[in-house]
Amino acid sequence: MSLYVPGSPSRKTCPTSDMSLSRKLSSVQQLHDRYREVRAWSETICAPLAPEDCVIQSMPDVSPTRWHLAHTTWFFETFVLSRATPDYQPCRAEFEYLFNSYYNSVGRQFPRPQRGLLSRPTVAEVWAYRRQVDQRIGELLEGVGADGERCEQLLLVIELGLQHEQQHQELMLTDIKHVLAQNPLYPVYRESELLQSSVAGARRGNGTAQISYGEGLVKIGHSGPGFVFDNETPRHREFVESFRLADRLVTAGQYVEFLKDDGYRRPELWLSAGWQTVLDAGWQVPLYWVQRGEDWWQFTLSGLRPLDPLEPVCHVSYYEADAFARWCGLRLATEAEWEVAAGELPIEGNFVESERFHPAPVTGASSSAAPDQLFGDVWEWTSSDYSAYPGFRPLDGALGEYNGKFMSGQYVLRGGSCVTPRSHIRATYRNFFPPDARWQFSGFRLAE
Amino acid sequence: MSLYVPGSPSRKTCPTSDMSLSRKLSSVQQLHDRYREVRAWSETICAPLAPEDCVIQSMPDVSPTRWHLAHTTWFFETFVLSRATPDYQPCRAEFEYLFNSYYNSVGRQFPRPQRGLLSRPTVAEVWAYRRQVDQRIGELLEGVGADGERCEQLLLVIELGLQHEQQHQELMLTDIKHVLAQNPLYPVYRESELLQSSVAGARRGNGTAQISYGEGLVKIGHSGPGFVFDNETPRHREFVESFRLADRLVTAGQYVEFLKDDGYRRPELWLSAGWQTVLDAGWQVPLYWVQRGEDWWQFTLSGLRPLDPLEPVCHVSYYEADAFARWCGLRLATEAEWEVAAGELPIEGNFVESERFHPAPVTGASSSAAPDQLFGDVWEWTSSDYSAYPGFRPLDGALGEYNGKFMSGQYVLRGGSCVTPRSHIRATYRNFFPPDARWQFSGFRLAE
Amino acid sequence: MSLYVPGSPSRKTCPTSDMSLSRKLSSVQQLHDRYREVRAWSETICAPLAPEDCVIQSMPDVSPTRWHLAHTTWFFETFVLSRATPDYQPCRAEFEYLFNSYYNSVGRQFPRPQRGLLSRPTVAEVWAYRRQVDQRIGELLEGVGADGERCEQLLLVIELGLQHEQQHQELMLTDIKHVLAQNPLYPVYRESELLQSSVAGARRGNGTAQISYGEGLVKIGHSGPGFVFDNETPRHREFVESFRLADRLVTAGQYVEFLKDDGYRRPELWLSAGWQTVLDAGWQVPLYWVQRGEDWWQFTLSGLRPLDPLEPVCHVSYYEADAFARWCGLRLATEAEWEVAAGELPIEGNFVESERFHPAPVTGASSSAAPDQLFGDVWEWTSSDYSAYPGFRPLDGALGEYNGKFMSGQYVLRGGSCVTPRSHIRATYRNFFPPDARWQFSGFRLAE
Amino acid sequence: MSLYVPGSPSRKTCPTSDMSLSRKLSSVQQLHDRYREVRAWSETICAPLAPEDCVIQSMPDVSPTRWHLAHTTWFFETFVLSRATPDYQPCRAEFEYLFNSYYNSVGRQFPRPQRGLLSRPTVAEVWAYRRQVDQRIGELLEGVGADGERCEQLLLVIELGLQHEQQHQELMLTDIKHVLAQNPLYPVYRESELLQSSVAGARRGNGTAQISYGEGLVKIGHSGPGFVFDNETPRHREFVESFRLADRLVTAGQYVEFLKDDGYRRPELWLSAGWQTVLDAGWQVPLYWVQRGEDWWQFTLSGLRPLDPLEPVCHVSYYEADAFARWCGLRLATEAEWEVAAGELPIEGNFVESERFHPAPVTGASSSAAPDQLFGDVWEWTSSDYSAYPGFRPLDGALGEYNGKFMSGQYVLRGGSCVTPRSHIRATYRNFFPPDARWQFSGFRLAE
Repeated sequence: MSLYVPGSPSRKTCPTSDMSLSRKLSSVQQLHDRYREVRAWSETICAPLAPEDCVIQSMPDVSPTRWHLAHTTWFFETFVLSRATPDYQPCRAEFEYLFNSYYNSVGRQFPRPQRGLLSRPTVAEVWAYRRQVDQRIGELLEGVGADGERCEQLLLVIELGLQHEQQHQELMLTDIKHVLAQNPLYPVYRESELLQSSVAGARRGNGTAQISYGEGLVKIGHSGPGFVFDNETPRHREFVESFRLADRLVTAGQYVEFLKDDGYRRPELWLSAGWQTVLDAGWQVPLYWVQRGEDWWQFTLSGLRPLDPLEPVCHVSYYEADAFARWCGLRLATEAEWEVAAGELPIEGNFVESERFHPAPVTGASSSAAPDQLFGDVWEWTSSDYSAYPGFRPLDGALGEYNGKFMSGQYVLRGGSCVTPRSHIRATYRNFFPPDARWQFSGFRLAE
Repeated sequence: MSLYVPGSPSRKTCPTSDMSLSRKLSSVQQLHDRYREVRAWSETICAPLAPEDCVIQSMPDVSPTRWHLAHTTWFFETFVLSRATPDYQPCRAEFEYLFNSYYNSVGRQFPRPQRGLLSRPTVAEVWAYRRQVDQRIGELLEGVGADGERCEQLLLVIELGLQHEQQHQELMLTDIKHVLAQNPLYPVYRESELLQSSVAGARRGNGTAQISYGEGLVKIGHSGPGFVFDNETPRHREFVESFRLADRLVTAGQYVEFLKDDGYRRPELWLSAGWQTVLDAGWQVPLYWVQRGEDWWQFTLSGLRPLDPLEPVCHVSYYEADAFARWCGLRLATEAEWEVAAGELPIEGNFVESERFHPAPVTGASSSAAPDQLFGDVWEWTSSDYSAYPGFRPLDGALGEYNGKFMSGQYVLRGGSCVTPRSHIRATYRNFFPPDARWQFSGFRLAE
Repeated sequence: MSLYVPGSPSRKTCPTSDMSLSRKLSSVQQLHDRYREVRAWSETICAPLAPEDCVIQSMPDVSPTRWHLAHTTWFFETFVLSRATPDYQPCRAEFEYLFNSYYNSVGRQFPRPQRGLLSRPTVAEVWAYRRQVDQRIGELLEGVGADGERCEQLLLVIELGLQHEQQHQELMLTDIKHVLAQNPLYPVYRESELLQSSVAGARRGNGTAQISYGEGLVKIGHSGPGFVFDNETPRHREFVESFRLADRLVTAGQYVEFLKDDGYRRPELWLSAGWQTVLDAGWQVPLYWVQRGEDWWQFTLSGLRPLDPLEPVCHVSYYEADAFARWCGLRLATEAEWEVAAGELPIEGNFVESERFHPAPVTGASSSAAPDQLFGDVWEWTSSDYSAYPGFRPLDGALGEYNGKFMSGQYVLRGGSCVTPRSHIRATYRNFFPPDARWQFSGFRLAE
Repeated sequence: MSLYVPGSPSRKTCPTSDMSLSRKLSSVQQLHDRYREVRAWSETICAPLAPEDCVIQSMPDVSPTRWHLAHTTWFFETFVLSRATPDYQPCRAEFEYLFNSYYNSVGRQFPRPQRGLLSRPTVAEVWAYRRQVDQRIGELLEGVGADGERCEQLLLVIELGLQHEQQHQELMLTDIKHVLAQNPLYPVYRESELLQSSVAGARRGNGTAQISYGEGLVKIGHSGPGFVFDNETPRHREFVESFRLADRLVTAGQYVEFLKDDGYRRPELWLSAGWQTVLDAGWQVPLYWVQRGEDWWQFTLSGLRPLDPLEPVCHVSYYEADAFARWCGLRLATEAEWEVAAGELPIEGNFVESERFHPAPVTGASSSAAPDQLFGDVWEWTSSDYSAYPGFRPLDGALGEYNGKFMSGQYVLRGGSCVTPRSHIRATYRNFFPPDARWQFSGFRLAE
């Protein structure tokens, strides 16, 4: 979980002189408000859950809800409180080991695949831990205002902690869906009226148009002010050939055609590693799809629902996206192509704030000017493996242990999903997962 | 979980004529009292647990507490209520699948290793389910009293259900110990004063005497009235050579000597399969032992405690018991030898009712007449593989799917442990586990 | 590979005084003749094999032919030559590590599952090694004759080495069958005329009779002169209830009926561990059976042949034998019952010397006096787990590392098979394998 | 094993008109000569091997020598003979299944991990098969000359078959090294005088210089005449930032410094997936390195030899190369950077023709103009994942089943090695392996 804050004069020293006290106090107040808001959203997410739900780990990639709640809090304690406070006394010393995810520089970690073996601290104890840390953060921020001695670096790391918590908020929803899906009772996380009622506006049919883009030397990655992660930098030049991009996501109905055409039984459509995964894992449909007679259903956070053929296909792996594209005679976009297309578009779409928790069909007529659904709904697999931009440098120290060390064997996804907080996403944002991951809200868009 | 009730004229027909109504009403009342008492003990066991504790499955052999509570209730619903009631409507139809352990005749079973992936029904829902079934059982038993039309078979199956619940009460304690032990916080299930205070009476030192028994053709197994499981029958003849049996269990202190003599590093002391397990599993000490500096500690249901050298060694596998015996130049007893020794002795010892939840050192002087600690404290590994007595026949139907089908690859343990209900055990009782099982409260006694 | 030689006054000292020189020279000569004969039979077995055949290890239980040839030679070098010769210089020092099977007392062992990763020493080098050791053994035995200073112990260990080589001769044939069976070309080890021509004598139909035996206290195990393994001793008393034993082995035709009755799809017929194995390994038929249309074929050492319904079923596990017996409402015999029946019968049957390498149908009329096929054809699974007889003591030292340490998780088989040398078997001989082993020539006989 | 032959007017039709008969006859003769030469080199490679060596498969990635010999022959039979001959009768019908590597379009394949379970056909039978196919190819090529009716397409596929055989010649040496390395006897494939004698010329010390290259839009990939694989096309534009490249490969001596600095024990130096591999596989040194006291040795095709600190480090994975680079504060080159540097350089270096079978130290003074060792010695890991060039299209049909379907989870290596045939390599050649592969002759060069 490393970050890069462009515009910061130095990541090492603590510059306070360039900011007047009043301006600083104002931004501290804003940050504290934002802190309360983001932290409160974690509570909103957990409201429908029983304590029993919060301890289950349904596979090694999934973490129990309770772990997410504690780990995000541990992050603030470790990287903010303990650094800002001389002789800091941790709330619970043993939590450093239990809730460290993978920061080797900080210390040993309780083994990830065993997170679901722990029943203590209980959920109630974790909530108490959160309140205790929130209290201390509040005191720290008030101290910043009072004595003016704290520095921007502190505020930046708090901002990072909030971005980090937002990532885990998405994971909490993604993971709890996987947990509940193990249960043959198909428990409902929360009834969604949006899923039941017809979506406002005319639903567009299954037709897809291609939008053309010319070749050129383009700039990719982030520069300028505002929070970004280190892996989005530096902004750099790439040569992109002319290409065409679909104006919408591939739909569930289109994917059903792939199924009917024996897509999961034809090795020639698949990457070799993908075909091996199909055989080993016994894949026959996207994750969470269920066939009953002739009909297709899917498990959602609102329980088992009929498949809507016009909604984007979701919970498919890179391998499946790639095989579908080959079946069409098309391909996936590169991340550079995607970023060219997303360019200056407004960040609008079906995000977690809609509380739909599921991708939505596209409505309204197609615009020739720009693709629909670039942001929200589902993360879009690109054909780009996740690697460093030329000149990339991770942060120093423990906070540099995130993005860089995962640059192997993963693919980039772009655009956020229906469980991503709207304020968390941007056109340069790079998410990444291994090509066989399916439990994320992941879909795809075609290019040629 | 099959049973055999000797003295029952037939296991198929329903004899009521041989019992006067008043006698029957009395026994029905007694059974109902016993039903309430046994079922209430399950609640007592669960009192110290948080909901989070009740859903964890720390390894495939372990079941979540919540599962035990539901499964024992499912047993009464499936084998008592649904059989006694025409057109029976189950409390929750989906529970038949979720809480069937391994009765193929009843239907499919939710996969055992995935019991820990379920958060629903919640613990509260399971308690509601228990109350509902208790209510129906109560009505059924009252109906038996009123109209006199029910038969003994019903009462027998209820008795079986209670024996079955007692077995699971022991497993609940055994399993929750394993669950809590995964946690580096070493959570306390319940503080035990017995463990803290010095045990009443003079503790005997580490000395062991051997008691001699002559050769002869003896009768082994159960006959006569009273509840027994089918695997204890039929009573039959075996020829037993003369033998000598230790007057007490092997102690933790004696076992430390084995450790110090490199017991876990000398393949010549081990069965070949045992040595392979030592290497594969990395065994170096009994389960739950922890070394801190020079001192030995162990995890107990009362948390991490110093090892008492005079208490029986516990949580060792058959392989470890066998290796220790070979190291001594001795051997384990056969189950026939054990039963000869236990013969007519009173069933007294450190059972679950003492609420110690841990084996106790032997107190008082040794008696040359009979071995100490035969009952309670720890299950005693015998050298006998678990197989059918000559003429053994399992029960017909689903209830016959228990004891017989496990007669392969397991060894017999005798005498009950500190988490066994006292009313559940007897001299002919045969428990059985694979030779690498360690999470049971298992120890051993030497013979030659 | 431990042995016990009853009648030997001491296993530790070297008594020569009780044997006149001439008698000794004569027995030395006989032993040398037998040595040449047994060693030559290994060459006969290998004659049809290409070097490529001799290095393959088709599963961890199987050893390459070349390994068998070297290991049996290593046995003579390690336990005879190096002990009898001061300052012995081994033929190839590195062979001690490569060809030690599991004698921890002798030293480390090259890992068993990796025996098939070695191409050197080549087969030709191993033959040279054998000739070198044979030469030295010859010189040693001539020295015994000339100076009279060698002792009986030496001769006994040589006899043990020959028994050991005979065991490996059986394994060579068993293992090479498994190796060749991996090949879709179904290579022929050797054409057998016996398999092609009709068997001499009237073949008996599929009928089976039961022979009755009364109850009693019987003596089991070996006593008296002659070579035996330690696990056959001591001779001791057991009480055996009256029983009935089938007069012949279960046939392939009878087993086909079990298949047709869905034997492999009905969990109620199987031990729990057996049913798990059926599911995990995907068993649907005995090992080496192949269905083509409606017809059954089987892979034999003479290639793929049609199944003869009157020959004994072979290559079945204990689990399958047990399930078949349960399907019949019968059971397998205990090893004590089998030994009572085999008692004083002559050791006659279809052994390796017939060079049929496959079990044969029974011919001629049934005799009420004694069961047919007790010796040869197939090893007969008994219901007895492999454990120590009362008072059993393994040999001291490295030679004691065989029989005792495998007494866990295995079942006893009796009577030898069509690949067992006739001179190797006797009524008290105890073979043993885990209950899921199928690559041995194993079948079974019913009892009740 | 798919190819793309630029300049071929069509891959589907068979153009003969553009080539005069005499010119064609001449090129046919040249091709036949080359066919004989390449095929004979396979025999040269196998000359030092015993039949036993040729059947071992030491891990799933390795194929037995005998399989390589048969598979390359099967390639000619399947893609040349059977296509060119109406009603073609295969030499051995069952070989189509046994020796198909992964061409799903051709038919089913014998499972790759089981190639080492087959002893038949024997090595001699495979040589006979090769001669039979060579004979038929010869007849086919003579027929081309005589009647003028065959077409270029045929010749192109023969050329492809030869390129394919050259790839397998490299694999034969790579695989047999892995096979022999399993043997604690460290067998010698062939004594190499080059390894023993001092290398001619002054050996350069461990110093490394960096050569600078400017930024620019460059052309990458192949265009123009001559054989290339499809994955080298199309030639396309990429923007490359300015970079610096080491003038030589990283040496074994430099790598020892990394070891001494605890390189394999510091997670912060490794990619997350790499660190997990270090832990799981227990990596502590490059493959084939052996420490004896203070000295480093390595297994080579000439047996166990002392490590030469000035030779390039070899048999390291991508993860190790990447960790070493991070330890230096540098990085690996991208494949575009490598290709820019290799540009127009002559293809000279330590290839298989030197019969050294091992990388060599660099000799002579450094040239500021161009890096040394770009070709030969070791394949150089680049930081580029193996993916399609923009506009890439695999061949149609079965021959398109090679390069494209492996474009996932692998990294590109460049430049060939000491076991690559010199005529097989070029600046645009893209080899690829997963990041944990170490059995290839793979090393690396630093960039920044």
